[in-house]
Amino acid sequence: MKLTRASDYAIRGVVYMSMQPEGAIIVIPEVAREMDVPVGFLARIFQSLSRAGIVISHRGKKGGYSMARKPVDVSLCNVIEAVEGDIKLNLCLDGYNACDRMGFCAIRKELETVQEDLIASLQKTNFADLAVEEQAHRDSL
Amino acid sequence: MKLTRASDYAIRGVVYMSMQPEGAIIVIPEVAREMDVPVGFLARIFQSLSRAGIVISHRGKKGGYSMARKPVDVSLCNVIEAVEGDIKLNLCLDGYNACDRMGFCAIRKELETVQEDLIASLQKTNFADLAVEEQAHRDSL
Repeated sequence: MKLTRASDYAIRGVVYMSMQPEGAIIVIPEVAREMDVPVGFLARIFQSLSRAGIVISHRGKKGGYSMARKPVDVSLCNVIEAVEGDIKLNLCLDGYNACDRMGFCAIRKELETVQEDLIASLQKTNFADLAVEEQAHRDSL
Repeated sequence: MKLTRASDYAIRGVVYMSMQPEGAIIVIPEVAREMDVPVGFLARIFQSLSRAGIVISHRGKKGGYSMARKPVDVSLCNVIEAVEGDIKLNLCLDGYNACDRMGFCAIRKELETVQEDLIASLQKTNFADLAVEEQAHRDSL
């Protein structure tokens, strides 16, 4: 039960974007260098973030990515789900015919509660707060 | 971010064990049949549960497994960690040199909080409650 590497890198990328002035267009190699992420992998991740409406892709000579929403309106949950799909803590929570035991299983009900707690916890953290913290850490070096 | 199949089966196995009278010795094929789990996989999982002090292995003709602790004293967290190892929500939370950014990273701190919430949520559910619910579901069929 672990975040994927793609989610880890996506979070780093959105933290960096959230540290920029509103509307700033940033290129992937800069994000990759600053957040210590492989540039090719990050490019694919930003395509997912763009499809999820978290960043906007700008083409052309001065192209790159900008935030599609205010950082305060983007949660850890949004970014993880943009990359991994909806959070499903167990296979049995993945749709209505995921397991033969679904009709009577006590475990599924409890795991659903744990999953709701987890999602609530991931929704609590927004990228405005993460950006402020990351900047403070950098300034203190 | 999903439980492994082994954790899913381990939870099923411990629910079944928790439904039995205290001290009862149960054989793996019975647990496998009742909880719809492949018997070979379940045998390996019960070895992990035994090492973690959740079940006791009994050898010989009347051998099998019994619970090592009262079901009320075994949490979802205990069983998942017996199979997957300590819950680490992200690679960066896996020890003291897991990531080069550890000295200043804002993300790590937030994910640590989410991880603590998740563990607390998994600790809340014990197998006495799960066994009662599972039995009630079965009786209602």
